[in-house]
Amino acid sequence: MNRVPDEGLVWVPGGTLITATPEEGRALAAMMARHSVHNIQPDLDILVAGRPIYSANPDSLIAASQVIAIEFQTVAAANNYWRG
Amino acid sequence: MNRVPDEGLVWVPGGTLITATPEEGRALAAMMARHSVHNIQPDLDILVAGRPIYSANPDSLIAASQVIAIEFQTVAAANNYWRG
Amino acid sequence: MNRVPDEGLVWVPGGTLITATPEEGRALAAMMARHSVHNIQPDLDILVAGRPIYSANPDSLIAASQVIAIEFQTVAAANNYWRG
Amino acid sequence: MNRVPDEGLVWVPGGTLITATPEEGRALAAMMARHSVHNIQPDLDILVAGRPIYSANPDSLIAASQVIAIEFQTVAAANNYWRG
Amino acid sequence: MNRVPDEGLVWVPGGTLITATPEEGRALAAMMARHSVHNIQPDLDILVAGRPIYSANPDSLIAASQVIAIEFQTVAAANNYWRG
Amino acid sequence: MNRVPDEGLVWVPGGTLITATPEEGRALAAMMARHSVHNIQPDLDILVAGRPIYSANPDSLIAASQVIAIEFQTVAAANNYWRG
Repeated sequence: MNRVPDEGLVWVPGGTLITATPEEGRALAAMMARHSVHNIQPDLDILVAGRPIYSANPDSLIAASQVIAIEFQTVAAANNYWRG
Repeated sequence: MNRVPDEGLVWVPGGTLITATPEEGRALAAMMARHSVHNIQPDLDILVAGRPIYSANPDSLIAASQVIAIEFQTVAAANNYWRG
Repeated sequence: MNRVPDEGLVWVPGGTLITATPEEGRALAAMMARHSVHNIQPDLDILVAGRPIYSANPDSLIAASQVIAIEFQTVAAANNYWRG
Repeated sequence: MNRVPDEGLVWVPGGTLITATPEEGRALAAMMARHSVHNIQPDLDILVAGRPIYSANPDSLIAASQVIAIEFQTVAAANNYWRG
Repeated sequence: MNRVPDEGLVWVPGGTLITATPEEGRALAAMMARHSVHNIQPDLDILVAGRPIYSANPDSLIAASQVIAIEFQTVAAANNYWRG
Repeated sequence: MNRVPDEGLVWVPGGTLITATPEEGRALAAMMARHSVHNIQPDLDILVAGRPIYSANPDSLIAASQVIAIEFQTVAAANNYWRG
């Protein structure tokens, strides 16, 4: 099996939910969502094969964006919404 | 690849979740949802090709409106619901 | 294009999440959900054509009612659940 | 059109999210979900025709139970989880 | 109709969201989800007929586990996450 | 029936939502999601048969990652987001 590299399997990249800015927080949310997929399916060849399918399917793109939205709720709350 | 312009890839347009009004907050939520899609699929031609498909499909429209609803929960909480 | 009238494109009808009663709050939630759809697809003819499809499909009705439920979570929190 | 009776179109039956018990709160959540569907599709004949379809479809039943779960989150929070 | 027994129709088994442990809280969440389905479809024969369909379908299992996750959010919050 | 081992049926592995780090919290969230599936379908042969289907289907992977995101919201809140 052509396995996803170890750094792609980290559940919380950077080890913390705290980020300096909303922009970084949202990038973290997206990465967390992606790494969930890697952990469920760590075979890189299968992931790469699926990419052209879901990434050209509007419904899949909407579904993927929803996971980011849910992860971001958590990251934003952790950061008190960066209210300063 | 005909790439989405850089400003369409910003995760949090404006760099903050704080907005003056609920109206602006909801517009931000919608833009954040759209930019998630851009980041997952930055090829503008594929995005443009998908537009007539999902935007005439009631189920896709419902799904897309749900992502906005989830993003808006975060933006509204960040703004203490604009309670004033 | 036969465009949705401007008032159907307002993100937060009335400009506030605060309502006098839960009944009004839930009506606002439903309207916000509908206006999200209008903003994604502002062509009235396409919307009208889709109506008989989703509104006679139980799964679509369930999906639409879920968006209202999510929007209502936000409106209800904004109003401190009208605890009085 | 054979219209859903007026009481089936009330957004928040009873006019309040506050209930005496979790049992009543969850019954309210279910009723709110159902009334959302009524408001989107108030034609009783169409609703009655759809009932045998979704109510014998496991995926539809799961989807409908999810809407109740989301509505209940709101009702439970409104009641401070009936912690007493 | 071969009806689900009365105890399977209770919305909140035990009448409270408060449990001694997370383990019991999660079991309650799962039971609440199941009882929602019973209330929507109380015909035991239809439920039993649907069981082999959804329980061997990965997508249905994922969907059902999501409802449990949502119910558990409510139960966990009610119990202050059993922080002790 | 080739039954899932008892430890795979524990609703909250470890018996607590509290973890030392976000990384462990997210791993717990993923395990909780998986154990929900085990509890709904405890037949190991059916689960193993379903694995190649959903794990090579991008939409299923997105759906599964969403359940993890929802579970993680609960675990993260329980841990006050590990703010320290």
